Amino acid sequence: MSTRTQRRRIQRITVSGDGPAGARADLLAVEEPLEIRIGGKPLTVTMRTPGDDLDLAAGFLFTEGLLSPAVDLRQIRMCDENVADATLEVASLPSLAALDRATDARRAQRNFLTTSACGVCGKESIDAIRVRSRYDLTADTVQVAPGVLASLPDRLREAQRVFASTGGLHAAGLFSADGTLAVLREDVGRHNAVDKVIGWALRAGRLPLTGHILLVSGRASFELVQKAAVAGIPVLAAVSAPSSLAADLADEVGMTLVGFLRGTSMNGYTALHRLTGVTAPA
Amino acid sequence: MSTRTQRRRIQRITVSGDGPAGARADLLAVEEPLEIRIGGKPLTVTMRTPGDDLDLAAGFLFTEGLLSPAVDLRQIRMCDENVADATLEVASLPSLAALDRATDARRAQRNFLTTSACGVCGKESIDAIRVRSRYDLTADTVQVAPGVLASLPDRLREAQRVFASTGGLHAAGLFSADGTLAVLREDVGRHNAVDKVIGWALRAGRLPLTGHILLVSGRASFELVQKAAVAGIPVLAAVSAPSSLAADLADEVGMTLVGFLRGTSMNGYTALHRLTGVTAPA
Repeated sequence: MSTRTQRRRIQRITVSGDGPAGARADLLAVEEPLEIRIGGKPLTVTMRTPGDDLDLAAGFLFTEGLLSPAVDLRQIRMCDENVADATLEVASLPSLAALDRATDARRAQRNFLTTSACGVCGKESIDAIRVRSRYDLTADTVQVAPGVLASLPDRLREAQRVFASTGGLHAAGLFSADGTLAVLREDVGRHNAVDKVIGWALRAGRLPLTGHILLVSGRASFELVQKAAVAGIPVLAAVSAPSSLAADLADEVGMTLVGFLRGTSMNGYTALHRLTGVTAPA
Repeated sequence: MSTRTQRRRIQRITVSGDGPAGARADLLAVEEPLEIRIGGKPLTVTMRTPGDDLDLAAGFLFTEGLLSPAVDLRQIRMCDENVADATLEVASLPSLAALDRATDARRAQRNFLTTSACGVCGKESIDAIRVRSRYDLTADTVQVAPGVLASLPDRLREAQRVFASTGGLHAAGLFSADGTLAVLREDVGRHNAVDKVIGWALRAGRLPLTGHILLVSGRASFELVQKAAVAGIPVLAAVSAPSSLAADLADEVGMTLVGFLRGTSMNGYTALHRLTGVTAPA
């Protein structure tokens, strides 16, 4: 197991009784924040899979037009708090706890919060990464049948008007616990599709989205779990894999996280007490 | 055809001779920048598919912790240059030319360029979106056989150490024109995988990447085409669909763009003169 994967106990769930069900170990792709600093000053934070971090920082800065190919990159290195003179540093924050400590330290150093809210892929600063929800998901006692979850991807696809013709759009669908579609939104960016769903609910005065299920057509990242938590959504289902930090955050806030929702089976990661007939992995 | 899709002439290419080949119309998912302003001041720019833009802006600001659900959102509206008092505005830039005009106007208004280079999903400002390449791709006369392109996804998958076990990582592979793998990188973010490849080349003194092919495991966005162009890569191949703006930018800079690279067939979008035996769509 490399630093790029994280082993986790999950619950394999099958609706029809076909195939093996039950607790098993699963490998998640690791997602962690990386802060890039120049001359000791934080420049940007990106969510990434650990590995080749110096290449990532160099490639990011160059393709953003901030580095010349002739620049001396011998100064680039992983952050070491004891050395202050590196030109370009990168610092990894390997857990939610480490991220929170860095966030608190950064906030304590200044009198204002950033007003430049950038997208998830390149936050200006660490304290812009963590957004706390005003809603307590653990109080949401909704129960969802795995059979309903298994039916959602087909319902989403049926409702999609564009995906089938271009193959290029992500979709996010908001459903009630019985599988009724409340709203569907599509976008080239999966975070945009989720923002459109939550913005629709906000403008319609429907927050928090207690008792609802959010289905996303792709993978579940830290960012998508956080957006769902901020909107008070208790159940997030993804057609593809969640990242390690997505599962960590879902665990922390008490969100039910389901992945690999395909055909009649799915993987349950966190807060499985909301799924009828399913017990948490031992 | 909605504003979320763009019709484009493409070249369907088959290697084995199976199936229909030749020019045909294809629908691409539209990708366009949207600028969000508060009180007339630009806050962020996001690349999105047009539609539900006010929901997108509201959902983005709320899930980023910048809006209270109790805030009065009646003031949110699409930008109208003749009205200056809206609380929250969004402005769409529907083409590369419109983006360039806005970029030039913004740059002319200030004496410094932004130093806060954020990721693609939430640039702080429009002038951070467009990065010009120092390399002229039109001078790259490399020839690539479609049969070589068709072999690359399998070569990439064979070389991937993590993808098969987690299903959660994007991959980017750099190949020479004969299909030899130069470097493979993986990440939960596809732009990070590409940054890692280009950063590797930068640090190894291998820029520009004349005569090379970049293969990405997912979709081809504007951002990925731009990153490849900045590194001097003449051929970008994607396993899935390109966006409209990806094809527009590839066309402008003279990059060969291939999508839906699966099995023995693929779609050719731009600069097809580099593909042996393939002619441009009429």
